[in-house]
Amino acid sequence: MPDKLLFTPGPLTTSPTVKQAMLRDLGSRDIEFIAMVRDIRRRLLALAGVSQEQGYECILMQGSGTFGVEAVLSSVIPATGKLLILRNGAYGERIEKMAKRLKLDYFAIGNDENQTIGDGHLEWIEKAWDQLLKVGFSPRQCTHTAVVHSETTSGIINDIQAIGAEMRQAGLTFIVDAMSSFGAYPINVAELGIDYLISSANKCIEGVPGFAFVIARREALLASEGNARSLSLDLHAQWRGLEQDGQFRFTPPTHAVLAFQQALDELDAEGGIAGRAARYQANHQALLRGMRALGFKEYVPENYQSYIITTFHYPSDPKFVFEDFYRRLSDKGFVIYPGKLTKLDCFRIGNIGRLYPKDMEALVGAIEATLKEMGVTVPVKWEPPSPFGPAPGRN
Amino acid sequence: MPDKLLFTPGPLTTSPTVKQAMLRDLGSRDIEFIAMVRDIRRRLLALAGVSQEQGYECILMQGSGTFGVEAVLSSVIPATGKLLILRNGAYGERIEKMAKRLKLDYFAIGNDENQTIGDGHLEWIEKAWDQLLKVGFSPRQCTHTAVVHSETTSGIINDIQAIGAEMRQAGLTFIVDAMSSFGAYPINVAELGIDYLISSANKCIEGVPGFAFVIARREALLASEGNARSLSLDLHAQWRGLEQDGQFRFTPPTHAVLAFQQALDELDAEGGIAGRAARYQANHQALLRGMRALGFKEYVPENYQSYIITTFHYPSDPKFVFEDFYRRLSDKGFVIYPGKLTKLDCFRIGNIGRLYPKDMEALVGAIEATLKEMGVTVPVKWEPPSPFGPAPGRN
Repeated sequence: MPDKLLFTPGPLTTSPTVKQAMLRDLGSRDIEFIAMVRDIRRRLLALAGVSQEQGYECILMQGSGTFGVEAVLSSVIPATGKLLILRNGAYGERIEKMAKRLKLDYFAIGNDENQTIGDGHLEWIEKAWDQLLKVGFSPRQCTHTAVVHSETTSGIINDIQAIGAEMRQAGLTFIVDAMSSFGAYPINVAELGIDYLISSANKCIEGVPGFAFVIARREALLASEGNARSLSLDLHAQWRGLEQDGQFRFTPPTHAVLAFQQALDELDAEGGIAGRAARYQANHQALLRGMRALGFKEYVPENYQSYIITTFHYPSDPKFVFEDFYRRLSDKGFVIYPGKLTKLDCFRIGNIGRLYPKDMEALVGAIEATLKEMGVTVPVKWEPPSPFGPAPGRN
Repeated sequence: MPDKLLFTPGPLTTSPTVKQAMLRDLGSRDIEFIAMVRDIRRRLLALAGVSQEQGYECILMQGSGTFGVEAVLSSVIPATGKLLILRNGAYGERIEKMAKRLKLDYFAIGNDENQTIGDGHLEWIEKAWDQLLKVGFSPRQCTHTAVVHSETTSGIINDIQAIGAEMRQAGLTFIVDAMSSFGAYPINVAELGIDYLISSANKCIEGVPGFAFVIARREALLASEGNARSLSLDLHAQWRGLEQDGQFRFTPPTHAVLAFQQALDELDAEGGIAGRAARYQANHQALLRGMRALGFKEYVPENYQSYIITTFHYPSDPKFVFEDFYRRLSDKGFVIYPGKLTKLDCFRIGNIGRLYPKDMEALVGAIEATLKEMGVTVPVKWEPPSPFGPAPGRN
């Protein structure tokens, strides 16, 4: 029986050839593996629009994407640093949890889950500055800012270009969690003024889970030496190790690395980020067409909506019980996001990974059949979101 | 061309069926994956001689084995705790580095790399207590102790039974890094009084790298809540997550987990730990026979020598250049440990992973051919180690 299709935040459905690349045992200190790691690091920089010659570095870090984010937060912010967190969802909140755990000096400002940060909202950022001043936390005192590019909570895209411009002007080091966008959205870290970008092997590059990666501006990275609060997650030491002898300091997930190199080849074959974006956009459009035809409404306003993940309101029919809906879809071979992260009653569907428009259409067909089985009628109870979210405030 | 055989510390050579288990994409929150994780956790407890009913818990942690060790150190020792590190090699020193990085209050006492900690050396531990008192660090003030069971630096085995008895008497929480021994040496954590044991997926269970695991005494684990210094490496929170809904808090390496379940099946089929130990012992004996016949001498005294890794003195012939020796062996398809960790000039050969006595014999044959190519003659220059190492002291 074939595996179920994954319309999830990751791990994702990957190609058979990506998985077959794992049918080898390579020594982690072997010359072939070392060459592969160097190649991967170089190619990731190129995907971020930069190179070592331009002063950027790529660091691979064992663990999930969250380990990569924590490696950055715990390694680059000095004891005297102050972190400004801009958040509009669960992954922004996770950064806040990390900052708290790491006992960083931080301040978090939030927006609604279906309201973007950045786009046309510079007044919002300015309000945020005002807020900071009120609590005696001057923007000039902040040293770093962190934001999530594509918030998996809702599928919203934040405008990292606008934020980057603002933050650069304020002289802040800019950290972007691009977990679910890198590889699908063009991101030039130099042009956007990003100092640290974090993503993961098993998102839009379509590898398997096992490691995260960080694109870092070398000058910032060099200045961070000695700040790390953990040995395993020490970003600077990990980079030094990779540079010195091409090796990970501690055992790498060799099979996940083998799969990742194959995934990069397949990304190239698809036409790079532009080609991948085109497929994901087609997937997203196929999903929207189908779901709208069934009467579903999206939660995120169209102009902030990513082509990565889409959040739909629950049908108002009380016969709709999400757990039952999820299980029935799974039994049909379609795994969507389990449970919700949003405050409103919504469910989420991802369209990244080795999926095609025909898969999205098959999913919509399965959703239609499932609703019929459950005796659920759409349309959904739904209020259009206000064009602007409430004033930012501490949660 | 088949992959080279790995006589390394890990990643190791695994069976084709273990790798083939990765040819699937499972959702990390899918019912099948959750059931698999529960099964793996139960089986790891059984391999440690315990069960949940007996008050023990198993936690899987993303990353390499070092991430598992740091998860324990950074999560279970309270701010007021004091850690005693017993070390006789690079992995004990790594624990010391972690303790330093985590700003733990710690004291490390060392023994020579080819001298065991524990066996018949309780007077050594008593001397250590005396040393501690001298620096105003009473054993009664210590709250935790950490030791490496099988030191990969040299292949020495430390006597965790003797240490455990001593530490229990002193009332210390006992942390054992059993990275390269678990699965090959019988370890009953309840009988040995071990509170936390750490090992990794890609050692003697013969899975692929991607996660570590911790066997913890539940009472100790519960008492550690709130001590974690990192979000990603929070052992208690990771356990809570796994218990509450069977899921990892953050994306798990699903493919490495699939491989691990298959590896556990293959361990069972081999007769469990006893069966695996028998094969590794046969491997070790085949290696020793061959290497001794070539004139090589071991570094570690026989009674402290593990059947995991063996360290041999360099030949005294100046024509022996290790890098050349390593590369020539690798070219023949035999990957040994690159470089040395010991202070003396030695090289190391592992015999764990999917290797058989015939593989060890093939390696010895390749070593003989390589020495001939290089014009190197053995025997080696070698001094038998003194039966007792120097008095313990802070490095």
